[in-house]
Amino acid sequence: MNAFYAQSGGVTAVINASAAGVIEAAMKTKLINKVYAGRHGIVGALTEDLIDVSKESRATIKGLRYTPAGAFGSARYKLKSLEQDRAKYERLIEVFKAHDIGYFFYNGGNDSMDTANKVSQIGDQLGHKVICIGVPKTVDNDLPHTDCCPGFGSVAKYVAVSTREAALDVASMAKTSTKVFVMEVMGRHAGWIAAAGGLAGKGPDQPPHIILFPEIAFDKDAFLAKVKQCVTDYGYCVIVVSEGAHYADGKFLADAGTKDSFGHTQLGGVGPVVANMVREAHGYKYHWAVADYLQRASRHIASKVDVQQAYAMGRAAVELAVKGFDAVMPTIVRKKSKPYKWEVGYVKLSDVANVEKMVPRDFITADGFGITEKCRAYLQPLIEGEDYPPYKDGLPDYVKIKGVAVKKKLNTDFKP
Amino acid sequence: MNAFYAQSGGVTAVINASAAGVIEAAMKTKLINKVYAGRHGIVGALTEDLIDVSKESRATIKGLRYTPAGAFGSARYKLKSLEQDRAKYERLIEVFKAHDIGYFFYNGGNDSMDTANKVSQIGDQLGHKVICIGVPKTVDNDLPHTDCCPGFGSVAKYVAVSTREAALDVASMAKTSTKVFVMEVMGRHAGWIAAAGGLAGKGPDQPPHIILFPEIAFDKDAFLAKVKQCVTDYGYCVIVVSEGAHYADGKFLADAGTKDSFGHTQLGGVGPVVANMVREAHGYKYHWAVADYLQRASRHIASKVDVQQAYAMGRAAVELAVKGFDAVMPTIVRKKSKPYKWEVGYVKLSDVANVEKMVPRDFITADGFGITEKCRAYLQPLIEGEDYPPYKDGLPDYVKIKGVAVKKKLNTDFKP
Repeated sequence: MNAFYAQSGGVTAVINASAAGVIEAAMKTKLINKVYAGRHGIVGALTEDLIDVSKESRATIKGLRYTPAGAFGSARYKLKSLEQDRAKYERLIEVFKAHDIGYFFYNGGNDSMDTANKVSQIGDQLGHKVICIGVPKTVDNDLPHTDCCPGFGSVAKYVAVSTREAALDVASMAKTSTKVFVMEVMGRHAGWIAAAGGLAGKGPDQPPHIILFPEIAFDKDAFLAKVKQCVTDYGYCVIVVSEGAHYADGKFLADAGTKDSFGHTQLGGVGPVVANMVREAHGYKYHWAVADYLQRASRHIASKVDVQQAYAMGRAAVELAVKGFDAVMPTIVRKKSKPYKWEVGYVKLSDVANVEKMVPRDFITADGFGITEKCRAYLQPLIEGEDYPPYKDGLPDYVKIKGVAVKKKLNTDFKP
Repeated sequence: MNAFYAQSGGVTAVINASAAGVIEAAMKTKLINKVYAGRHGIVGALTEDLIDVSKESRATIKGLRYTPAGAFGSARYKLKSLEQDRAKYERLIEVFKAHDIGYFFYNGGNDSMDTANKVSQIGDQLGHKVICIGVPKTVDNDLPHTDCCPGFGSVAKYVAVSTREAALDVASMAKTSTKVFVMEVMGRHAGWIAAAGGLAGKGPDQPPHIILFPEIAFDKDAFLAKVKQCVTDYGYCVIVVSEGAHYADGKFLADAGTKDSFGHTQLGGVGPVVANMVREAHGYKYHWAVADYLQRASRHIASKVDVQQAYAMGRAAVELAVKGFDAVMPTIVRKKSKPYKWEVGYVKLSDVANVEKMVPRDFITADGFGITEKCRAYLQPLIEGEDYPPYKDGLPDYVKIKGVAVKKKLNTDFKP
């Protein structure tokens, strides 16, 4: 049987490392014949637009390990319940059947694990067995039952490094210029990325002085008082704010007013909102940065641990399939924090699907503006080590797939 | 005699490398006794707040080479003409005289070269000779008579790398999600940093598809038409916009409404302004990033050429002083582009002061949205090579000075 691999949702600096893990492991087992990848994720399966991975060179597959973003194309495309979207699930099985696909490796977050689980069920119902294995991926780090999620460690490293660097800049200038610097980071519901900013310094005088988490309702008065205290005591104030920061009533500090295809509110711009608040209240000169895609695409400063875990999760997914598992996802199991020791475990997809892991309250300081030692002990190992890509002409020499299409067998039109 | 070193204006990823160059060269010459640094630049001289650099360890001085931002503190503090600010210039000479300072190394941009030139003149007038040498520094790359300015190469590399990475992200997602990505970069008057984004790709289909320069008046209709063409032809559109992008009448696309201490308008937020324009006209889903201080502090991805040049400029400043030069600035002279060969030259401060070097028209494509091969040939060597800092616990292990104050001799109060 052949295998189908697809990337789903927001991409990361290391999702292609997971792809490399899947592909290289699949090449080693006799159970799997060819690996096909979905062009633009699950959309490629629905439209029978499959990429023949065997047409890619070994060097390209190897290069996926150090190439960020989704080399095969990803998709923000959610399949709803089996009842609501039955035609789509049936179409998937139809395409899988036509191409002798008996294995489905779905590289994504919560929603994707739910989809993979349903595909496993519908295949059984329709008499075409598909072994469905999830491959964890999300910069948000919000999947349960795994120590962390591939993609997160590298964003965490980027945010911690960037916060440390920008803070040095502000500290240099504060005497006569910028006193407040605001850095907006991703994390709609879970504040893991914002928390990672906390690794940039230790102790109340070291930046970042304030972190605004989605897990803590924003208290404007307490925030402004803290900014003033920092500028007074340390000469400047560095703030890391999560895009999901919100008031007690649930209203986001910044709401761009647009929604994505999942109906989620599209956020952006909480950085300038917070900076303006500070200026209005205290008149301090400020600067703000919004890292946006830079943070999750920043393969140039990826965490070595993260790259290793991303690759290991891809490989483990194939190994689980070979061992006869179905509807599971490999996980990272922490054995020790210092030095970091981890091994591969697994969990049922049904236990992962649509569950979000938030930053626990005891990872956040009592005042709600910082991370505790417990949080630091959890986060620190995940940003360990550098894994630099090769460079050419001063720029990272990332690979690009040829993307040769598999000949269509159905040739039926399907609008996803 | 002793030497006084000061950092001025916006800091960079490599200004401390210039400091290391000055300090290590000064330690080698018998002409210079001690090196004092201004705490917060020239403000430290005016307030007699001098740092005794001899109290720093060799390891710290060496570490300055890989530590971003201004280790001694910088200042946005402009001295006006000798007539308008005579008391301040006299104060400087008073402090220099009290501390046997006969050499002044001023590490900054256009304004600072003007100040250094005036200090040289006033010293002569007041009978306390001070050899004044400028050390070029500006991420804006707008100093004349030098191939480039230390600080620029590293921002250029950061912007090119970040654009390449974020563009891969957008390309992965564009089928079902974000189609337009806008990256805002620094450069109020000169578009060198924006131009560097152009190094991320080659050919019209490769991102960035559009660069908005301050040198080209913004034409909204032409811009929106080009965005549409890119999304239609390539599936997505990546835009690099300079903070100084403006309309034909000179009005900035984004004007935050605040001014800095020089009376310059404080800009910020042209990225979201441009993104909103696209959404209103075409309805495309967009993302935007504002790198702000991240770009100029990003020592983790510094250009090796830039680090070498920054260090060489610091060292050359001392060597020029030793040779008896006064009121000059060392320069970078390009001998060859491929492979890049350069040597150290010099220029009179009066020829540098307050002159801005813009991106020439023939470095920009006819349509005003891209860089020409000539521009590419100029820029490419400046981002060559990586020069990674040491890491500890997953983060760059930057040095911090002790900053021991020199005992005051005047003890007179001076409000700068």
